[in-house]
Amino acid sequence: MEKIKNRLEVCLSPAIYDKHADDANLVVIVDILRATSTICAAIQNGVKCIWPVATVDEAREKKKQGYMVASERDGYVLDFADFGNSPFNFTPEIVKGKEIVYSTTNGTRCIHMAAHSRAIVIGSFLNISALAEWLIRQNAPVLIFCASWKDRFSLEDTVFAGALAERLLQSEKFESQCDAVTASVDLWNLAKPDLFGYIQKSAQKGRLASKGLDDCIEFCLTADQTNVVPAFINDRLVDIFGEKGF
Amino acid sequence: MEKIKNRLEVCLSPAIYDKHADDANLVVIVDILRATSTICAAIQNGVKCIWPVATVDEAREKKKQGYMVASERDGYVLDFADFGNSPFNFTPEIVKGKEIVYSTTNGTRCIHMAAHSRAIVIGSFLNISALAEWLIRQNAPVLIFCASWKDRFSLEDTVFAGALAERLLQSEKFESQCDAVTASVDLWNLAKPDLFGYIQKSAQKGRLASKGLDDCIEFCLTADQTNVVPAFINDRLVDIFGEKGF
Repeated sequence: MEKIKNRLEVCLSPAIYDKHADDANLVVIVDILRATSTICAAIQNGVKCIWPVATVDEAREKKKQGYMVASERDGYVLDFADFGNSPFNFTPEIVKGKEIVYSTTNGTRCIHMAAHSRAIVIGSFLNISALAEWLIRQNAPVLIFCASWKDRFSLEDTVFAGALAERLLQSEKFESQCDAVTASVDLWNLAKPDLFGYIQKSAQKGRLASKGLDDCIEFCLTADQTNVVPAFINDRLVDIFGEKGF
Repeated sequence: MEKIKNRLEVCLSPAIYDKHADDANLVVIVDILRATSTICAAIQNGVKCIWPVATVDEAREKKKQGYMVASERDGYVLDFADFGNSPFNFTPEIVKGKEIVYSTTNGTRCIHMAAHSRAIVIGSFLNISALAEWLIRQNAPVLIFCASWKDRFSLEDTVFAGALAERLLQSEKFESQCDAVTASVDLWNLAKPDLFGYIQKSAQKGRLASKGLDDCIEFCLTADQTNVVPAFINDRLVDIFGEKGF
């Protein structure tokens, strides 16, 4: 008997999201430089949970309520925030056991756009193997959702989407009729032999470098630094990699 | 003295168009399978002009007014239309000297979205060399606008965007800080050694094949069949390749 495979799609921009939206989807949010890499690092470093908020006003309000707040727009730390969006901010000494409110230019908005879905998880190179393993275990359609940059296509998010899509397709539990899957897997295979070199071509590398914020790029492109799979549950991001019966 | 270069961008979906829109742009509309290939073929075959209309209702109204009408949705010829969207419909015997009203699922909508721009021209492999030459002559920013499929990313439109972008960048009259340019040029270089084979992977190939409409794919991927550069002027598409002082 032929096994029924689950649908795999890649959404290249929030502007296209409504064409891919399906309540049955497991949605993987991808914002490699830097939000989803940073979320994985923070949870690996012992953050109790992260409250993603979409707007600056919500982040400011949470700060007044006494939360530790990470918030940036266009790479700049907002004046009321404790820190911005670099994964190096979230060291164990600072974040262990803490609840953190988090708002970024692109990544946190996507989490809220996809809130209707069966599950929302956070993807980055830091947790790619754990994430692929978790997704393959679920037996459900997967949408890899690139946060991109202000709705434009983003090279680094797409290359990661291709890396993850390739692993899911290799499991033979998924099938794709989505051109964005085809293109992202092909771009990943071009980038793979020298990922850091390839991402030098990305517009986001230039944006970060112009603000002196590109020190974290190599870190954000380094695979398998953690086994956490952050998921959005009850308005918070918590690790569910080890959960039984999700 | 360093020459000032013009901006080159690729827009991968109509859903992202407003992020790229600029009144100064020369906009190249791309809908390889099949609208923009067909428009180039029709004008090469002697059509006097094409009136692109966005909606089915407009097309039906024009038919009542006595125009020859080409109109399709999702690959199906509309009942009132003279023919659909295959380039093989527009033979010299049928179309020479005629004015044709034309409405398709994706391509004609984009022409109207970009109507604010400095100029709108039609791009396909059929006219790629003439088009590149014309664009390089204009000294203005260029946006290559992929019509895609119902706002989703489209492999064949993106590969063409890469082929055209590569020629424009090689002229050294253009510069790009757009990740969609980078990705489309890279995908074009992957596809180039066997373009027909590569496009077999596209979702649109499957859509056309399921309706027996994939007979035109090789034709639509064959470069330099014509020197026409169709442009949208006074609500009509006419050839402007030879125009002086556009």
